[in-house]
Amino acid sequence: MDYKVGCSLSYRVKTPTPFVFNIEAARTGGQTVKAETLDLSPNVEVERWTMPESGNRYLRVTVQPGPFKLDYTAEVAIAPALQAPESVTEILAADLPLSVLPHLWPSRYCQSDQLNRLAQRTFGGEMPGYARVNAVCNWINDNVDYMGGISDAMTSAFDTATQRAGVCRDFAHLAIALCRSLGIPTRYVSAYAHRLQPPDFHAVIEAFLQGPQGPGWYLFDPTRKSAPDGIVRIGIGRDAAEVAFASPFGDIEYDKPEVWIEAQGGSAPGVTTQAVRAEP
Amino acid sequence: MDYKVGCSLSYRVKTPTPFVFNIEAARTGGQTVKAETLDLSPNVEVERWTMPESGNRYLRVTVQPGPFKLDYTAEVAIAPALQAPESVTEILAADLPLSVLPHLWPSRYCQSDQLNRLAQRTFGGEMPGYARVNAVCNWINDNVDYMGGISDAMTSAFDTATQRAGVCRDFAHLAIALCRSLGIPTRYVSAYAHRLQPPDFHAVIEAFLQGPQGPGWYLFDPTRKSAPDGIVRIGIGRDAAEVAFASPFGDIEYDKPEVWIEAQGGSAPGVTTQAVRAEP
Amino acid sequence: MDYKVGCSLSYRVKTPTPFVFNIEAARTGGQTVKAETLDLSPNVEVERWTMPESGNRYLRVTVQPGPFKLDYTAEVAIAPALQAPESVTEILAADLPLSVLPHLWPSRYCQSDQLNRLAQRTFGGEMPGYARVNAVCNWINDNVDYMGGISDAMTSAFDTATQRAGVCRDFAHLAIALCRSLGIPTRYVSAYAHRLQPPDFHAVIEAFLQGPQGPGWYLFDPTRKSAPDGIVRIGIGRDAAEVAFASPFGDIEYDKPEVWIEAQGGSAPGVTTQAVRAEP
Amino acid sequence: MDYKVGCSLSYRVKTPTPFVFNIEAARTGGQTVKAETLDLSPNVEVERWTMPESGNRYLRVTVQPGPFKLDYTAEVAIAPALQAPESVTEILAADLPLSVLPHLWPSRYCQSDQLNRLAQRTFGGEMPGYARVNAVCNWINDNVDYMGGISDAMTSAFDTATQRAGVCRDFAHLAIALCRSLGIPTRYVSAYAHRLQPPDFHAVIEAFLQGPQGPGWYLFDPTRKSAPDGIVRIGIGRDAAEVAFASPFGDIEYDKPEVWIEAQGGSAPGVTTQAVRAEP
Repeated sequence: MDYKVGCSLSYRVKTPTPFVFNIEAARTGGQTVKAETLDLSPNVEVERWTMPESGNRYLRVTVQPGPFKLDYTAEVAIAPALQAPESVTEILAADLPLSVLPHLWPSRYCQSDQLNRLAQRTFGGEMPGYARVNAVCNWINDNVDYMGGISDAMTSAFDTATQRAGVCRDFAHLAIALCRSLGIPTRYVSAYAHRLQPPDFHAVIEAFLQGPQGPGWYLFDPTRKSAPDGIVRIGIGRDAAEVAFASPFGDIEYDKPEVWIEAQGGSAPGVTTQAVRAEP
Repeated sequence: MDYKVGCSLSYRVKTPTPFVFNIEAARTGGQTVKAETLDLSPNVEVERWTMPESGNRYLRVTVQPGPFKLDYTAEVAIAPALQAPESVTEILAADLPLSVLPHLWPSRYCQSDQLNRLAQRTFGGEMPGYARVNAVCNWINDNVDYMGGISDAMTSAFDTATQRAGVCRDFAHLAIALCRSLGIPTRYVSAYAHRLQPPDFHAVIEAFLQGPQGPGWYLFDPTRKSAPDGIVRIGIGRDAAEVAFASPFGDIEYDKPEVWIEAQGGSAPGVTTQAVRAEP
Repeated sequence: MDYKVGCSLSYRVKTPTPFVFNIEAARTGGQTVKAETLDLSPNVEVERWTMPESGNRYLRVTVQPGPFKLDYTAEVAIAPALQAPESVTEILAADLPLSVLPHLWPSRYCQSDQLNRLAQRTFGGEMPGYARVNAVCNWINDNVDYMGGISDAMTSAFDTATQRAGVCRDFAHLAIALCRSLGIPTRYVSAYAHRLQPPDFHAVIEAFLQGPQGPGWYLFDPTRKSAPDGIVRIGIGRDAAEVAFASPFGDIEYDKPEVWIEAQGGSAPGVTTQAVRAEP
Repeated sequence: MDYKVGCSLSYRVKTPTPFVFNIEAARTGGQTVKAETLDLSPNVEVERWTMPESGNRYLRVTVQPGPFKLDYTAEVAIAPALQAPESVTEILAADLPLSVLPHLWPSRYCQSDQLNRLAQRTFGGEMPGYARVNAVCNWINDNVDYMGGISDAMTSAFDTATQRAGVCRDFAHLAIALCRSLGIPTRYVSAYAHRLQPPDFHAVIEAFLQGPQGPGWYLFDPTRKSAPDGIVRIGIGRDAAEVAFASPFGDIEYDKPEVWIEAQGGSAPGVTTQAVRAEP
C-alpha cells in the first residue's frame, strides 16, 4: 500500500536557534520511501544523522531570528504482514535476542520497574503473545480517558496508571511500561497514521513477539484510533524522549503542526483484527 | 463486648528526647475505658492533650539517655451497632454536615485529588453507600498484595495505586483516597484489633454514611484481617501522619512493640458481614 | 489599621451544584470584622460552619443551573504587633504546646517528611527563630521563579523543591514544608493582601515561634509581594487543600475572581522588616 | 597503567533462571583487555552480545536450580589523558555531533526535563566546560549525604534532588540529570574503580566536552571516592537501567558480590585534579 504523507511546521524564531527534527519517514524494513521533498524557508543548511540502532533520521538546522517554516512530503510504500493473532506468541527471557534488551529496560516515561506488580496482577493470567499485548491495549482503552489538557510533556506511565487520562503519547507509554513489566520488549513508534482524526503526529507501539516465520516487532495502537496496517513510521525509541518531532534549543514560538496522510490507489485498510507485523 | 488491650514499648535513648505517644484507647462515642494503667520506666513526668476535634489522647514525655519503657493496659467496652449493609447509604455533598469536610480533603498519604478518575471509573457504577465502600475494600484486597518490605513511611496512596503492595497502613490510605474521590468523607483509625495475627497496632478506616438512624461513621478493615466489630480505637486522623503511636524527637533505638487484645467474657466476634457503626 | 476588602465571583452553573466557599474574613485574634455584606444572585439559602480549631468560616449554597454570582465586602480592623526580629526565637519540641502539633505533621502539599535532609542541610546552621524562617523565605525567593503556567492544583512542595517555579500557593507550600522539617509548626493562610499586584486571593504562612511576650503565630509572605502587616486573613489550614476559596461539587464554568483590598484612613504599611505577629 | 580487576558473584538459584551479566571490562577506546578469565560453576553455556553503540559486553546464561558462581578476572591497561581543566570547554547545541544526542535525552533515573530550572539557577553562572561539570559534582558532594539505606533501585535524580541522600548510583544519576539540563551530553559508567573503599562495583559519569585535541568524553566521579584516572570501565548507558551488573529472570538468592581492583607495577594514581579523558 502506498501513502502520501507530510507535515508543515511554522516557527517564529527569536534567538539564533538550533533545531533537531525527526519527521522524515524511516527507510527501514517493510517501508520504502519512494520519493520525498524537504523545503525549508529560509533555506538553511541541513545536517543529517541516521541512528544506526533505530534507523531514525534526525536532521539539524540552525535558524536565525525571524519566521521559519519546514515542509516535508513523502510517498511511502509499506507492506505490513497480517497474521493470525493466535499464531503470534511470546519469547522467553532465555531466548530473546540480546539485541532487544534495551526495549525491556525501564525508560524516562515507561517505569516498568514500578508497574511490575500491577502488570502481573492484571495481565498475568492472559494468554501470552499477541493476545496479551492486545489485552493491555484493551485495558488501557477501558480504563484511561483519551483527552487533552490533563497530561503534559512530563507525564509518565506511572502518572497515567493512576490519573487515568491522556493522549496517544500517554497511552503508548503506559502500554510499553506494562508490556516490559510482563517481560515483552516493547518500543515507542512515532508515525503518520492512516485514519487518525484529526490528523496529527501519532504514537503507537511495537512489541517483540514470536510469529509464524520467526521473531519480530508487532504493531499495536493503544488508542485504537488509527489503522495498525496503515502506519508510516518516523522514529523508534525507548519512549517519546527519543523521537520528538522537533527539539528547539532556543527561544521560539510555534503554530500547531499540520500533518497529513493519504492512501494512494486501491482500497485503504480498515481497522484490521489481524496481527500486524511491520517488517517482514 | 469488653476487651483487655495493651502495649509495651521499649527504647534505648541516646540523647535527651521528647516523645509524643498516641497509644491510649480513645474515650469516645461507643467506647468506654473502664480501667487503664500507664507505667513508665523511668517514671518521667507526663503531659497530656486531647485533641478536641478527634478525641485523640496525645501524651508527651521527655526522656534522658538510657533505657526507657512504656507499658499500657486498658479494659475497654465497645458497643458497635451492627446494621444491614443495604440500609447504609451515601450522603450528597449538599447534605453532608460541614464538619466532616476535613475528611473529604486530600491529605499527605491520601491524594484523592490525583485518584479521582481511577475512583470514578472503577467504582462509579457500584451501588452507593456501604456497598460501594465495601467494593473499594474488596478491590484493594483483590489487587494489592499484603506484604512487608515494599512500602515505607513515605509510601502514599498514589504509590500503592500503582505499586500494588503494602501493609495495613497502605491499604487504609488507598481506601481512604478512593472513597474521598467518590465524595465519601473517610478517615484513618489506628486501633487495637481483635483477631489480627500477629497482633500489632492496626490501621482501619471509617466512612461517613447515612444509616437507618441517621448519618455516622462506619468502620471497614480494608485488609480483611481483623473483626470490624472488635476494634478498640486509639486515634482518628486524616491519615497516618496524625496518629503515629510514637513520635520521638531525638536519637533513639527501639524494639518491635508488643501489642495485645483479648476479648473478655462471652463469645468474641467473628468477622461480621454486617455494617459496623462504631458510635451510636 | 482598617481595610476594606472584598471579592466578586461569577459562575455559569450547568447542573445543580453545591458550593463550599471560604472567602469571608476570619473573626479571630487580632482581626475584627467591623462590617460585612454577602450578596448572592440568585439569592439562595446559605448554610454556615465555623471550624472550631481554625476559626475558618465556611459557607455552603446549592445552586440551580444558570448564572450565579457572589459578592462579598467587609471592613476589617487588624492590629498586628511588630516586634524586633531578633526577639523572636524557636521553641523546642519538648516545650511546644501539644495543640500546635497538627502543624508539624506533613500534609498533602507540604511533605516535610521528604524534605527533612534538604531543610537540615540548607538551614540547619541558620540562627533559630524569626531569622531562620526568614532565611527559608529568602532562599525560596532566590531559587524559585514566581511564574504562572508551570504548577497546577496538584503541585506540591516536593515538586517545587526541584522544579523551581510556581505561584504564591507553591511558595507557601515549600516554605511550610521546610519549616516543619526544621521542627517549626507552620500553617497556610489564605488572605486579602495589601500591596499584592495584581490583586488576588493570596497565600502566606504563619510559623509558631517564641516572642517577647510568649509563643504565637508569626506571619511571613514567602513571595515578598505583599505587606506582611497588611494581611486580612480568610482561612488557616495545614495547606491549600483546607482553605480553597471555592469548592464546587458539580459542572460549572467560572470567570477569574475579582479581589480587592484598600487601606482606610491613615498611611498604609509598607513592607516592614519587623517580625509580624498577627494575634496578640 | 595496568590493573588487575575481578569479581565473584554467588547465587542460590531456586527455579531455572536466565541471567544477563555485564561485568566484563569493556574493550573500548583507551582501554585494552590484555587477559581475562571467566569461570562459571556449574559450567553452563554462555551467549554473548556486544552492544554496538556502547561497546558493552553482555553475556547470558541459563542456570538450573542449585548453587551458581561466576568468577571473573582481567588484566586491563588504561591510558587516560590528563589535561588542564581550563582547556576543556563546552560545545554548543548547534555543534554537538548528532550521535551524542541520546545522552542529552532524559532517562528513567535522570529526569533532566524536570530539573531544568534547578540546573540553570544553580549552575547557569558557572564557567562552561570542565569547571561547570566539576561544580555540579562539588554541589552534589556538599548537598547530598553519601549513605546507604535511604535510596533503593527505584530512586531517581528527581527524588535525590530533594531527599539529599544516596549511594554512588544516586550521585551519578543526579549529576547526569543536572548536566543534561545544562545542555551537556552525559552518560552513566559502571566500573572497577581504583581507591574506592570498600571495593564494589562503582558508578561514575562521563560528560561530552571540547578538549584541546577535540571533542570527547570526560570522566568525573561525583562521589569523589575513587581516582578518576584509575577507572576500568564495564558499561556505558543512559543510566543504571542499562548497565546492571546482573539481571536475573527467576527466583534466586544472592550474596554480596566481591569486587576488586589492583594497580600493577609502578605508582598508582592519586586523586588527580586534572581533567580525565578516558578515550584518546
